[in-house]
Amino acid sequence: MITVLSGGVGAARLLRALSDAHDPVDITAIVNVGDDLVLHGLTICPDLDTITYTLAGLNNDELGWGLNGETWRVMDELAALGGEAWFRLGDRDLATHLYRTQRLHEGATKTQVTAELAQRHGVRVTILPVTDDPLSTEFVTDEGRLSFQEYFVRRHHDVVVRSLAFVGADQARPTEEVTAALRKATRLVIAPSNPLISVDPILRVPGVRAALRARSHDVVAISPIIRGAAVKGPADRLLRELGHDSTALGVVDLYEGLVGTWIIDEADAELADDIRARGPRVVVTTTVMADPDDAARLASAVLA
Amino acid sequence: MITVLSGGVGAARLLRALSDAHDPVDITAIVNVGDDLVLHGLTICPDLDTITYTLAGLNNDELGWGLNGETWRVMDELAALGGEAWFRLGDRDLATHLYRTQRLHEGATKTQVTAELAQRHGVRVTILPVTDDPLSTEFVTDEGRLSFQEYFVRRHHDVVVRSLAFVGADQARPTEEVTAALRKATRLVIAPSNPLISVDPILRVPGVRAALRARSHDVVAISPIIRGAAVKGPADRLLRELGHDSTALGVVDLYEGLVGTWIIDEADAELADDIRARGPRVVVTTTVMADPDDAARLASAVLA
Repeated sequence: MITVLSGGVGAARLLRALSDAHDPVDITAIVNVGDDLVLHGLTICPDLDTITYTLAGLNNDELGWGLNGETWRVMDELAALGGEAWFRLGDRDLATHLYRTQRLHEGATKTQVTAELAQRHGVRVTILPVTDDPLSTEFVTDEGRLSFQEYFVRRHHDVVVRSLAFVGADQARPTEEVTAALRKATRLVIAPSNPLISVDPILRVPGVRAALRARSHDVVAISPIIRGAAVKGPADRLLRELGHDSTALGVVDLYEGLVGTWIIDEADAELADDIRARGPRVVVTTTVMADPDDAARLASAVLA
Repeated sequence: MITVLSGGVGAARLLRALSDAHDPVDITAIVNVGDDLVLHGLTICPDLDTITYTLAGLNNDELGWGLNGETWRVMDELAALGGEAWFRLGDRDLATHLYRTQRLHEGATKTQVTAELAQRHGVRVTILPVTDDPLSTEFVTDEGRLSFQEYFVRRHHDVVVRSLAFVGADQARPTEEVTAALRKATRLVIAPSNPLISVDPILRVPGVRAALRARSHDVVAISPIIRGAAVKGPADRLLRELGHDSTALGVVDLYEGLVGTWIIDEADAELADDIRARGPRVVVTTTVMADPDDAARLASAVLA
């Protein structure tokens, strides 16, 4: 049983590689919900959807998000109406949000809806939102508080961040399924996702950090930072702005006490001794999942 | 100043003909909201949209509802997901509902959103929901209570109706704009809409019926029933099921005391004396708006 703490794209690729190398029914993703949002009345869960779409083989590799073969009829019309069209939702993708929102209105939980969507798409990995309670990541900036998607999509992360707020995290409860997945896992994995805005919201749900700490010898983490730069997104910049070392070492320090084994990229091999000096074991391999072979190699390292 | 109490398609056609014959800025539609619904988290206002689309020249004449040049990407995908796809929402049409729902979430009223959409579409007739408060028409049947769209769309009105309920009507307030439009009108028109489920929900908003009664000599009504049959929809059947005469006379009796002048179709000319005996004047003309000439003739009769 493998349980993976997951953000969006990086985690989705790792999960896909893991499920190619290992029986998917024994793999569970515990997924960040801090960047979920309500827009146009629709509940949108970007990380859950990225993982579902990727594991279903439906992800749009050109865009890096959303579904393949996508069209934009609704957004084009919404833009013509002068509506809020900065958060681009494709026509097929919208069906997911309509389905989810209707089911939530009917009383289903986010966990249930996620399972239904995964089943419709033939995904056999178990995909779990870390909580069914409200939890939203906000960016405190010089220009005021921004929601996750305002910072990320509307402002293209071009504004200096002073601090992060995880609204609702203290009151959020991990679902029973999440608690069980943390308990039953023989290997716990922290995906190469943004440590501050993808993984930290998961760790802040009461009980999750403690569960990892108690089992840190079974925890494997992959650094999302290579040679001081994020593989994707603004992780390096955010680390710097929030006072952390923007190298793999900075991430190691963020997860202090939680990780038994670090997997770092060959390009960062010189950091291995520094990490070992802090306690964890270190595996050096290719961590960029540029092609299926690389992803398979990383999956092997995680499973080894 | 002409103010028209309006349901959907029949009212929309009349309004189009009136605005061809008269300055549209002097025409106001007060529109039924009893069949508005929330589905997939989206607020959908079928009558308001039918009127806006028709006056904008964007209505889909083939379907009899929705927008022309429509596509169905979202609904097809939603159906594939096993979602609630019985209420068909086209891709362009969905943009309207996303726009409206987002604006309502931001605190705008339905009246404001309706005005914004009309303006975007270049519509110069003033389109007003009768109220910004909740009001929903429900059908009490042997199979339980059905919402408007469950009865109309999902069940294709194939279930016997015992009674109607107008949930929220007693507490609903007409908007200031509606009250002003009733007061300022030199002619008040009841469109050839379903009297029980399109016009009655308007009349039940406190103050509206009294406003018409006080000015009944200025009220012109067009019967939606010709030779005992509805021009469109199940009005005749509903009249019978609910104990009314399913002829133009039945509609005349429903609006007793409210109407100064009735416009009935030539095919019902023999009813003119019976109607006059009840008090109102009667104009006999073609009331079916089968083509633009017919619609223009009806508009002339209304304006005469």
